[in-house]
Amino acid sequence: MENEPLLMLPGPVPMPERVRQAMMRQAINHRSAAFGEVYADCMRVLKTVSGTANDLFVISGSGTAAMEAAVANFGRGRRIVSLVNGKFGDRLRRIGDRYGSVTPIEPGWGMPFDLSAVESALEAGAEVVTMVHNETSAGIRNPAREVGKLAQEHGALFIMDGITSIGGDVVEADRWGVDVAIAGSQKCLAAPAGLSAISVSGKAWDMLAEDRPFYLDLEAYRKSAAKSPPETPYTPAVPLFFALREALLIVEEEGVLPRAARHEQMAQAVRSAARAWGLDLFPVIDDIHAYSNTVTAITLPEGISDAGFRGGVRDLGVVIAGGQDHLKGRIFRIGTMGAVGAPEILATLAAVERVLRRHGIPVAGDGVQAAAEVME
Amino acid sequence: MENEPLLMLPGPVPMPERVRQAMMRQAINHRSAAFGEVYADCMRVLKTVSGTANDLFVISGSGTAAMEAAVANFGRGRRIVSLVNGKFGDRLRRIGDRYGSVTPIEPGWGMPFDLSAVESALEAGAEVVTMVHNETSAGIRNPAREVGKLAQEHGALFIMDGITSIGGDVVEADRWGVDVAIAGSQKCLAAPAGLSAISVSGKAWDMLAEDRPFYLDLEAYRKSAAKSPPETPYTPAVPLFFALREALLIVEEEGVLPRAARHEQMAQAVRSAARAWGLDLFPVIDDIHAYSNTVTAITLPEGISDAGFRGGVRDLGVVIAGGQDHLKGRIFRIGTMGAVGAPEILATLAAVERVLRRHGIPVAGDGVQAAAEVME
Repeated sequence: MENEPLLMLPGPVPMPERVRQAMMRQAINHRSAAFGEVYADCMRVLKTVSGTANDLFVISGSGTAAMEAAVANFGRGRRIVSLVNGKFGDRLRRIGDRYGSVTPIEPGWGMPFDLSAVESALEAGAEVVTMVHNETSAGIRNPAREVGKLAQEHGALFIMDGITSIGGDVVEADRWGVDVAIAGSQKCLAAPAGLSAISVSGKAWDMLAEDRPFYLDLEAYRKSAAKSPPETPYTPAVPLFFALREALLIVEEEGVLPRAARHEQMAQAVRSAARAWGLDLFPVIDDIHAYSNTVTAITLPEGISDAGFRGGVRDLGVVIAGGQDHLKGRIFRIGTMGAVGAPEILATLAAVERVLRRHGIPVAGDGVQAAAEVME
Repeated sequence: MENEPLLMLPGPVPMPERVRQAMMRQAINHRSAAFGEVYADCMRVLKTVSGTANDLFVISGSGTAAMEAAVANFGRGRRIVSLVNGKFGDRLRRIGDRYGSVTPIEPGWGMPFDLSAVESALEAGAEVVTMVHNETSAGIRNPAREVGKLAQEHGALFIMDGITSIGGDVVEADRWGVDVAIAGSQKCLAAPAGLSAISVSGKAWDMLAEDRPFYLDLEAYRKSAAKSPPETPYTPAVPLFFALREALLIVEEEGVLPRAARHEQMAQAVRSAARAWGLDLFPVIDDIHAYSNTVTAITLPEGISDAGFRGGVRDLGVVIAGGQDHLKGRIFRIGTMGAVGAPEILATLAAVERVLRRHGIPVAGDGVQAAAEVME
């Protein structure tokens, strides 16, 4: 088989060889010391990268399963203020609608939240706040610390989707007042898709719903994780746990802060390339610190279709993302997550620049060299 | 690393080399033709082994997730008659309690159901029947054809857990009147743990609940599977799909009926050994056809503890199962699922016989030779 193309998506991302090898291991009994060790390692490093000392569990299911677990266990029947500035914020809002009563704060994709509106909703009695930390659909990093502070001041529960920040950007759940932090496996952690993690504060446990789902009943996760050796309540996706453990050991070896710094540098390199080309980042905002460090959204220039553009890049062996929903055909997105580095970024930007030039798009300067300068 | 011990459990089971190799593949985009092909292969062969032409989806979650999906999507707010003669029947009942109003029929673990009681419950207005086809906790195969007929006659929906029969025993969902059939990956299919499958009849779609869960919303699965190429609504556990596809291609190469015959022969071999030793099968029942073809439960003789017995077998490199819940310490269980054959069965029985003899348990005859005769 020829090589798989290079995935420069906001997940899934290429997995290191060590991670792939870990999956090859023969089946083991998941009620055993051998599995318990693997699960314990996963919980330990996931707590570190999430910046939490709270309980934390791994769910055999995608990030969406963990999002639903958060809202179904702690938001049922409650008043929820849901911060929406992209596709995943909208998903949390829709999950909120199934379980509670939602007040949305919705400035438009990629637009900043009006924190005084959040405060008003909390003063009006909202008990739960949901927000996506890193909104990949719009290339934006949302103000988790500020929202966490507001939630804490009003005694509300803060559920934060950190699926595309945890392991790639600085996340300090406990310091920021995040009660429930959600992580995904196939994003900045560079593990395979199929697992998610969820942390639970004492305040969240106090708000545990009586009427909970079955597969995603976090009380069952708590009981099973407290056993010795720790277990999951239902059969876990064992090979994915082997792989996640290996990916997390790699994160631990690199160090959480150096890894976040590397992700920031990679995103800066892509942003520098866009500036050199004279292409607008999406959205155009003043606060440079609000741009994501794990994915960069760039406005697709006039004169080229999304299919023609990304197809051309794909022909050079690199897969990048388009826009989602109403941003389809208006932006393209380059993920800088996980185990990738200068070679992958330079290859991606070179392919993008080649396709832009080939389609006669005026390109101001040399984006690849601008990125290389940042990556030195 | 030394070899993993031989797992002769009612799942998880050893995976063939081809299946483990398939997981090594680098990450791919799950919104792509490459993934669509894998998913399509999975759906095709899973329909064959389930004996259905209905819609069928693969869920990234254990069998319990699919059990909940069945009840939550089709049983919410309904009157459910729940057939319980073991741990997994009880799990379906508990899930039923969360979503509907349950009448249990509960003869005791491993005991046959009184079909006239099922009929009475249906006549009294039950709209949904739940049953586990192969109840591993008690080593029993339940009468799916007969219960399906009753459900059909009364216009009720039949949800059947086929997690430990599909791929190892004959399952004819459509012919038996099974509306929703559930399969698991790490049992008779010899794929890794972490995926489940669910089939949905037209009658079931007609009963789809308005208020559905999010991650397990089967309407979302239907929409995504109807796309070209087919997709899953949320990020799938991609490496497990690669492995499941490979495992299903192996099933297809062997043939569904030869595979079922092989499983039956393996279970007969274990039952012959028990008879030769003079140990009782659990439960003691007249109907030999009610014994499972994928797991055999045997009464643990007096004079040996569960820990001493299974620990001794484990020291010889083989993992077998004990009893669950109130059967802990009273029975032991040998799985005969998936890719195993004569060598694994003979090794297992030889280890069991050795440990029995070493503990001074009177053993009537040569169980290993009795099994070998069956496997010839």
